[in-house]
Amino acid sequence: MKIGLECIPCFARQAFEAVSLVTDDQKIRERIVRQVLFRLANVSFDNTPPSIGRDIHRVVRLLSGNSDPYLEIKKDSNTLALKLMPSLKELIRSSADPFETAVRLAIAGNIIDCGQGDHVGEEKIQKTVSQCLDQPVSKDNINELKEEIGKASNILYLGDNAGEVFFDRLLIEELQGRPITFVVRGAPTINDALTEDARMAGLDKLVRVVDNGSDVPGTILEECSPEFKRQFMEADLVIVKGQGNYETLSDEHKKIFFLLKVKCPVIAEHIGCQEGDMVIINRG
Amino acid sequence: MKIGLECIPCFARQAFEAVSLVTDDQKIRERIVRQVLFRLANVSFDNTPPSIGRDIHRVVRLLSGNSDPYLEIKKDSNTLALKLMPSLKELIRSSADPFETAVRLAIAGNIIDCGQGDHVGEEKIQKTVSQCLDQPVSKDNINELKEEIGKASNILYLGDNAGEVFFDRLLIEELQGRPITFVVRGAPTINDALTEDARMAGLDKLVRVVDNGSDVPGTILEECSPEFKRQFMEADLVIVKGQGNYETLSDEHKKIFFLLKVKCPVIAEHIGCQEGDMVIINRG
Repeated sequence: MKIGLECIPCFARQAFEAVSLVTDDQKIRERIVRQVLFRLANVSFDNTPPSIGRDIHRVVRLLSGNSDPYLEIKKDSNTLALKLMPSLKELIRSSADPFETAVRLAIAGNIIDCGQGDHVGEEKIQKTVSQCLDQPVSKDNINELKEEIGKASNILYLGDNAGEVFFDRLLIEELQGRPITFVVRGAPTINDALTEDARMAGLDKLVRVVDNGSDVPGTILEECSPEFKRQFMEADLVIVKGQGNYETLSDEHKKIFFLLKVKCPVIAEHIGCQEGDMVIINRG
Repeated sequence: MKIGLECIPCFARQAFEAVSLVTDDQKIRERIVRQVLFRLANVSFDNTPPSIGRDIHRVVRLLSGNSDPYLEIKKDSNTLALKLMPSLKELIRSSADPFETAVRLAIAGNIIDCGQGDHVGEEKIQKTVSQCLDQPVSKDNINELKEEIGKASNILYLGDNAGEVFFDRLLIEELQGRPITFVVRGAPTINDALTEDARMAGLDKLVRVVDNGSDVPGTILEECSPEFKRQFMEADLVIVKGQGNYETLSDEHKKIFFLLKVKCPVIAEHIGCQEGDMVIINRG
């Protein structure tokens, strides 16, 4: 999925928010924002949004000297998500269909996305969680996902953000014994989950955790490590979380289920849904 | 008041919205947005926001060949405001303090501002009107404004947007007989009011209407016509509507009352209030 013209103001906003995190020095902030604007002025509209996002956040990290601007935010998200786990586990345990509830919660967790605006706090997460059980989601796609998971012998689960990985754990706990490999980014980019975030969520105790070798806030296969590319090729089912992964993998010919919370009008139009929707897309 | 770094994403959004109005040709839209981004990348942070806004909207008009991109929106705003007038006049007529009510409505009308986002429709205007009578506004400043209007022998009233001019007329009707000159922009810029908008509101039947000779969405005195500069010098009271005029005149040493609806966090911080507030500022 390629960027649209309407992505440009959003990228400018992302750059502003990122520089506000890395330094109070107005001169450095200005220098970074100018550099980002030059890149946006020359941008190719053949790129995917995460490709541009990667470029922007590389500029921020390089010119600020801060290798992980969202580190504190990621820690906060993990702490917050950890706090919510007991009540969410109880929600799954007591529900009529624990698998469906776990899927819905995994999608709800995708609200923790700093690419889409300010730091997502407890109130917004709680609201998303409380809405997620009643929001319309394709029951057919949930059933198909369950069926495919049952059949698959090699499942790749592409995570998205810190904090959200705890919600992914809820779903992965429901799939105990299934052959799942959980994938995180290879280097810091926005608030995307790294190996340490997956470990904080205890995912390494349940499944194999690998990184994709890339700092793209999505999954551009040709920029991932050879090892990850091989794993992607070999997987017979890929569960994909979030907008950035959708934007970069929506054209792949592969059995993929995309699970995401739609947070931007460009993606909503691409999918054919509304902003705020929870979606499970079966591209297989 | 100078631009802040947080103005940059907002300018990028303005450019995107403006190109969406002028053409469906994606290549022209891209060319304009790239040109705007180059200018933003080189922007001087010593400028006021309306100075940059003027540059951006000049680029849009020049590269699109459309001399007044917001013309239809301005017509719609005028039509909508005209429709609301009977009920608003009745509101003033039946109120305990018609002057205060007219001041409040004049400020409410300032919501019709396309620099701050999408086209402002009937629902938003109605909501703003219904809130404006109860929102906190400095009673002292309302009383001082009334007193100064009573004393002044040469009042300049700087209008802001199309549609809003009808709301200004409500206040000016309450000031029948006072020596008021109503000022509009000298050329199209965003949805700012021009002479024809003031005429549509019937302001030329009540007071003298002049233009300031400039296409800045605000009032940069050195860029206005010599005639307007003289009038500004000679006025002993200036009533100033809207954010753009505030941003460009807040440092003037002059008896000025600013009447505006605060619609952006940068201005809210400069004034020391909250977004959404209605304010009357007495800088005299």
